[in-house]
Amino acid sequence: MITKPKGTYDVLPLEVREWQKLEETIRKICKLYNYKEIRTPIFESSEVFHRDQNDTSDMVTKETYDFKDRSDRGITLRPEGTAGVARAFVENKLYVDNPVTKLFYMGPMFRYERPQKGRNRQFNQFGVEALGSDSPYIDAEVIALGASLIRALGLKDITVKINSLGDEESRSKYKDVLVEHFGKYKDCLCEDCKNRLIKNPLRILDCKVDRDQEFFKTAPKINEYLNEESKTRFNKVLEALDSMDLKYVIDDNLVRGLDYYCHTVFELEVNVAEFGAQNVIGAGGRYNKLISDLGGPLTPGVGMAFGMERLLLATSFSGKNLAKEEYIHAYFIALGEKAQAEAVKVMNACRIGGLSCEMDYLNGSLKSQFKKADKNNARFTIIFGENELAEMKCNIKDNQTDEQETISLLEVYTYILTKLNKASACNTCPSKN
Amino acid sequence: MITKPKGTYDVLPLEVREWQKLEETIRKICKLYNYKEIRTPIFESSEVFHRDQNDTSDMVTKETYDFKDRSDRGITLRPEGTAGVARAFVENKLYVDNPVTKLFYMGPMFRYERPQKGRNRQFNQFGVEALGSDSPYIDAEVIALGASLIRALGLKDITVKINSLGDEESRSKYKDVLVEHFGKYKDCLCEDCKNRLIKNPLRILDCKVDRDQEFFKTAPKINEYLNEESKTRFNKVLEALDSMDLKYVIDDNLVRGLDYYCHTVFELEVNVAEFGAQNVIGAGGRYNKLISDLGGPLTPGVGMAFGMERLLLATSFSGKNLAKEEYIHAYFIALGEKAQAEAVKVMNACRIGGLSCEMDYLNGSLKSQFKKADKNNARFTIIFGENELAEMKCNIKDNQTDEQETISLLEVYTYILTKLNKASACNTCPSKN
Repeated sequence: MITKPKGTYDVLPLEVREWQKLEETIRKICKLYNYKEIRTPIFESSEVFHRDQNDTSDMVTKETYDFKDRSDRGITLRPEGTAGVARAFVENKLYVDNPVTKLFYMGPMFRYERPQKGRNRQFNQFGVEALGSDSPYIDAEVIALGASLIRALGLKDITVKINSLGDEESRSKYKDVLVEHFGKYKDCLCEDCKNRLIKNPLRILDCKVDRDQEFFKTAPKINEYLNEESKTRFNKVLEALDSMDLKYVIDDNLVRGLDYYCHTVFELEVNVAEFGAQNVIGAGGRYNKLISDLGGPLTPGVGMAFGMERLLLATSFSGKNLAKEEYIHAYFIALGEKAQAEAVKVMNACRIGGLSCEMDYLNGSLKSQFKKADKNNARFTIIFGENELAEMKCNIKDNQTDEQETISLLEVYTYILTKLNKASACNTCPSKN
Repeated sequence: MITKPKGTYDVLPLEVREWQKLEETIRKICKLYNYKEIRTPIFESSEVFHRDQNDTSDMVTKETYDFKDRSDRGITLRPEGTAGVARAFVENKLYVDNPVTKLFYMGPMFRYERPQKGRNRQFNQFGVEALGSDSPYIDAEVIALGASLIRALGLKDITVKINSLGDEESRSKYKDVLVEHFGKYKDCLCEDCKNRLIKNPLRILDCKVDRDQEFFKTAPKINEYLNEESKTRFNKVLEALDSMDLKYVIDDNLVRGLDYYCHTVFELEVNVAEFGAQNVIGAGGRYNKLISDLGGPLTPGVGMAFGMERLLLATSFSGKNLAKEEYIHAYFIALGEKAQAEAVKVMNACRIGGLSCEMDYLNGSLKSQFKKADKNNARFTIIFGENELAEMKCNIKDNQTDEQETISLLEVYTYILTKLNKASACNTCPSKN
């Protein structure tokens, strides 16, 4: 037997409904905030993700699926959504028509990680990017959108962890004092942090290894090094969160993994017991140089991403079932060859009219067919054999009321519609849309 | 500037709505026919697609994106949907709970072809697979589903081209006479067909190069070699199509590219002038050995696939616009810093209540903000500056009626709901779903 590739998984029909519902919810929330969907290719030229040789983020250095296509072009399966969206923004000059371009994406991403619980090599991300405005209010909007999504999924107790990395001047000053501070403890740093000390000292604050060391706790804090402008800006973000009743906690050590962040960085946490301390469900921040790095005009941006598997995990841990129980309108039990042929015809008319129908293509016993009607959660069961067919009749059973009647095969469709108390099966009928 | 990889494309916000609508329509139609969505990984172990060294289909021999992952595993970006679905069916033993398993999939596929109009290296397919039943009626059901989809997209004049390749006995007999026939003209055959003559003579009938030759027209026809059982089966498929009022044409030369087909093969054609003679929009057939080839139990199957780009192209050529015009409920024009901060608050309350809102994050002039409200197709525009704010008032304009009123900032939400003539903004409100 051939199996799925390591770190991937199949979404089977029973689980797919939760995914469909999640995607639907995401689209609805994005509509409220006026973010528009964009779809970029599954793979990009490798340089879209490997722009900076000095980039120390794990994603870039070791976790991507890189390969050469048949013309020896370097191709990378997208490990995240932002870079591809930024590339598309620049290449399609979206800024020309929309000085502020608000986009969202969702879909599969790929990282060559050691598969573990909740971590797959193919996984799905939803994210938003607001490009073109430096307003602190749009940072707050992105956070509010994230909180709305979490609430719409039935999750509660959202906490926003937030920090400001300030503008270039502030960050540069802070970097200097960080290097000075951690330089004193150079020999005590983990190998990764020794490297970070040279390449990106801010990321030391992210370190899971060194975080309990005393010299870590005594490290200088970014907020002491923000210049006036950066401080004012950060305060406006916080005031906007206040005005929207969003609870936040300022976290001095929050720097996020990516090198291009400036000003606002944030994480959204939910209270899900099973997640333990790892309760971050979405995160993002402001980046003002990414678009110009990719060859576009200097364009401020702010974005956020969620792991979609993690969103579904959180809803399931919280006992929320996004998808409603599925049902079909009618199950046809046709006994004998001629009755089956007639069922094909009647069922087809019902489907064209917008009713969801099924029959048994294995020609099973009456008993097994009743079981299948039940399994399909059919609202009505239509039963007929050669005798009934001779009179063009059938028995129709309403499985909600257990009522049973004998009606003409020609009136099955209208009978069901009447019972559903509808003028037409508009909830499913494609022609009504 | 870094560009998208050759043969890929971005779906930009204006185009994405057509895609969303297409996917929605597909899900609705599949619901009517009781097919359930399945999602398999974007890449599979290469052997899922390269099972048979003798397979002569182009897709398998030269068109796949094959690469090695970091552990030297052979990985292939899926070039089509059926093999992955079949792999998932076997691996997850879907047949245990569902003797007849009816599945559909949609999403990106990858083939390393020369990009040309309407042919991309990353493209999207929708397909269905009905596994577990050998009934001729389920062949007809699959075809009817395809026709329903085409109709639901507003396309007309559907023709089903259909043929039967018969069972193994019939096909084997027919292959012998084909080899005998074409063997006589061996030197006149194109290079591909010379190869096909040895590996899969049926596929010669598919040849675009040799099809106008005299010896091609005099080739023996499959229907003369179908045994009784195969003939009876084929007739039942045709009778079912008749009973569903689906027009069909029997096409003797229709064999389809894949080696594993048996019995029913078909193509769905639409009448789209711009397509010219190439008016096939979907195709499929019965395969009874694929599942066992992948290590599962002997399981009959029938399936069909559509190129989604082609479906959208056909609708656009036919002047159909799947997506309705988009609008937002309210655009907030807040003049001055304090008014902006207040707009953030009011807008947030409206969004949480299910109204789609926008404001200008660039702090533009009154004139430019009115333009943006228009561009966003806002139903209402809310305007206030510091003076109005001092009294907690705003001007609200209904862009449908041009009515304008001064109301309290606190009643913006209820005012809009009342004007929309709704008890709640249920069409967009996430909490209602």
